[in-house]
Amino acid sequence: MELAQSVLKGDRLALARLLSRVENDTPEGRQALDALFPHTGRAHLIGVTGAPGTGKSSLVNQLALGIRKQGQRVAIVAVDPSSPFTGGAVLGDRVRMRDLSGDSGVFIRSMASRGSLGGLAATTAAITQVFDAAGFEVILIETVGAGQSEVDIARLAHTTIVVEAPGLGDDIQAIKAGILEIADILVINKADRPGVETTERALKTMLELAHPVRKVFRHHGQVMELNGETVPQEGLWIPPVLRTVATDGRGIPELLEAIARHAAHLRSNGDWARRERARFQAEFDLRLQEMLMERFLANVPAQRLESALESIQLRKCSPREAVSLLINDKN
Amino acid sequence: MELAQSVLKGDRLALARLLSRVENDTPEGRQALDALFPHTGRAHLIGVTGAPGTGKSSLVNQLALGIRKQGQRVAIVAVDPSSPFTGGAVLGDRVRMRDLSGDSGVFIRSMASRGSLGGLAATTAAITQVFDAAGFEVILIETVGAGQSEVDIARLAHTTIVVEAPGLGDDIQAIKAGILEIADILVINKADRPGVETTERALKTMLELAHPVRKVFRHHGQVMELNGETVPQEGLWIPPVLRTVATDGRGIPELLEAIARHAAHLRSNGDWARRERARFQAEFDLRLQEMLMERFLANVPAQRLESALESIQLRKCSPREAVSLLINDKN
Repeated sequence: MELAQSVLKGDRLALARLLSRVENDTPEGRQALDALFPHTGRAHLIGVTGAPGTGKSSLVNQLALGIRKQGQRVAIVAVDPSSPFTGGAVLGDRVRMRDLSGDSGVFIRSMASRGSLGGLAATTAAITQVFDAAGFEVILIETVGAGQSEVDIARLAHTTIVVEAPGLGDDIQAIKAGILEIADILVINKADRPGVETTERALKTMLELAHPVRKVFRHHGQVMELNGETVPQEGLWIPPVLRTVATDGRGIPELLEAIARHAAHLRSNGDWARRERARFQAEFDLRLQEMLMERFLANVPAQRLESALESIQLRKCSPREAVSLLINDKN
Repeated sequence: MELAQSVLKGDRLALARLLSRVENDTPEGRQALDALFPHTGRAHLIGVTGAPGTGKSSLVNQLALGIRKQGQRVAIVAVDPSSPFTGGAVLGDRVRMRDLSGDSGVFIRSMASRGSLGGLAATTAAITQVFDAAGFEVILIETVGAGQSEVDIARLAHTTIVVEAPGLGDDIQAIKAGILEIADILVINKADRPGVETTERALKTMLELAHPVRKVFRHHGQVMELNGETVPQEGLWIPPVLRTVATDGRGIPELLEAIARHAAHLRSNGDWARRERARFQAEFDLRLQEMLMERFLANVPAQRLESALESIQLRKCSPREAVSLLINDKN
């Protein structure tokens, strides 16, 4: 409780301490989360996802600087699910420190994966809640693209930015399709490199596949040609494709503007609340699963579990049958 | 039951039909899985994971051909978690058909993601059980690298092969670290391309970081220099780094040999059974979660759930508190 109070008062040390407890899922962390929850709901959660090599950390850096210039406080949550022990994210932080350190309106937190099913997305959700309660108006959630965990994490966000770069491998198409589905804004970073036109064309083609309705709009001339200036019509958000050069800041103002437009769009058509609801539904389901498991296992002797596993390994019964036996036996 | 019997008799049509039911998690699929489970336990599960552009599909193709030449039946499960709707995997199949179609000792199944938390890994596990029971001696599980879902899927396998290619992006390091931890065998495919030495050096350096004990071994001269010929000592498996050119088959015999050596290694030191047990433990936990949720929700009126979610959205209570209220209310 004390910790939660200190966090609400803006104590950075308490914030760092609480984040660790939340990440480690300690009882104190859980309690503080519950205490902070009523203070959440103000932050704009922005997911930034992209493959390694797209320069997405630099982009996040620039976004944070830009958001600070607008006078908002910003937290960065760098999630690296594929790097459990050497931590590319940690390296990223070092680079960031040069531009962002010493600014009390910025807080950076790196998380590496580990642990159970869905654990990372759940922990990330909890971390964002802490930042939200602590008064950070914008929370940037940075993940390495590709894979279900990124999609899960992207679902946390109000706005999801997918970052590409020119000439990253020859068959990026396969990996992109799923990611495109979750993109609210597409960014081609390193846009000063050769191949940017090819990448842009490929992205726009894939976008048309992913959002077939857009094609119709184009045929009827109701939507301007696809680019950063595309105007959504009739409640439809068409992901803009923007170019940036994060190393020198080119394109960042346009990106910040697109982010603001997207937030306004979500609020005006009710999607802001819908996305929030979907997020709470997911967290609710997860907590329910956890709690049911905890309660159930607390009443099952270890030997019973052991012998259930043994009967599976001996192929006497399938995992589902073993579970069914165990549950029905108990009730 | 009929379906399961037909699958055991080698009926390919029944096999295809059952795989669909298992993938869709139908009651008939579940029943058949239970019936088939006692017939599992013979297959060697081999995970092959790598980023797009590494040519891992061609490599899997070549491995399947090589395994067929050894007289074993082989199934390929192509999992593409990032491609839920355009399906790169489907395209991969077409290419494969040329070499492998018409051979009744080969069966190829593509799976795209969708659905719930951990769903893909669970479904993949179920699919491999069907193939195992159907008498396929080797099951190749192909996934796009990077991300927790791949790590989860790799955990299914007895042997995990991580595929790289020369010159894929400039900061692949970050993404590789986590993947390396799960690699039993490292393959640099497209080894006829420039940059292969650099990639090999980078991989070996990262391997030393991931397996510090190796360094000691090297210092004491008890293990030969790191390459395909490295001999594991005292129960320690040191992931070999192999070069292949899947398009013309170079390096495939050496890779098959390394796979066989790894299987022998796992069997001799007890890791085969340990990995199997870990797999069953994970599946057991997942089924237990599912079943507890099903049973619990069956007895909760929809309005109760609705009002729990509403109180979260109104910030009256946190997701955890809402769950706690719901559970305690019920008992």
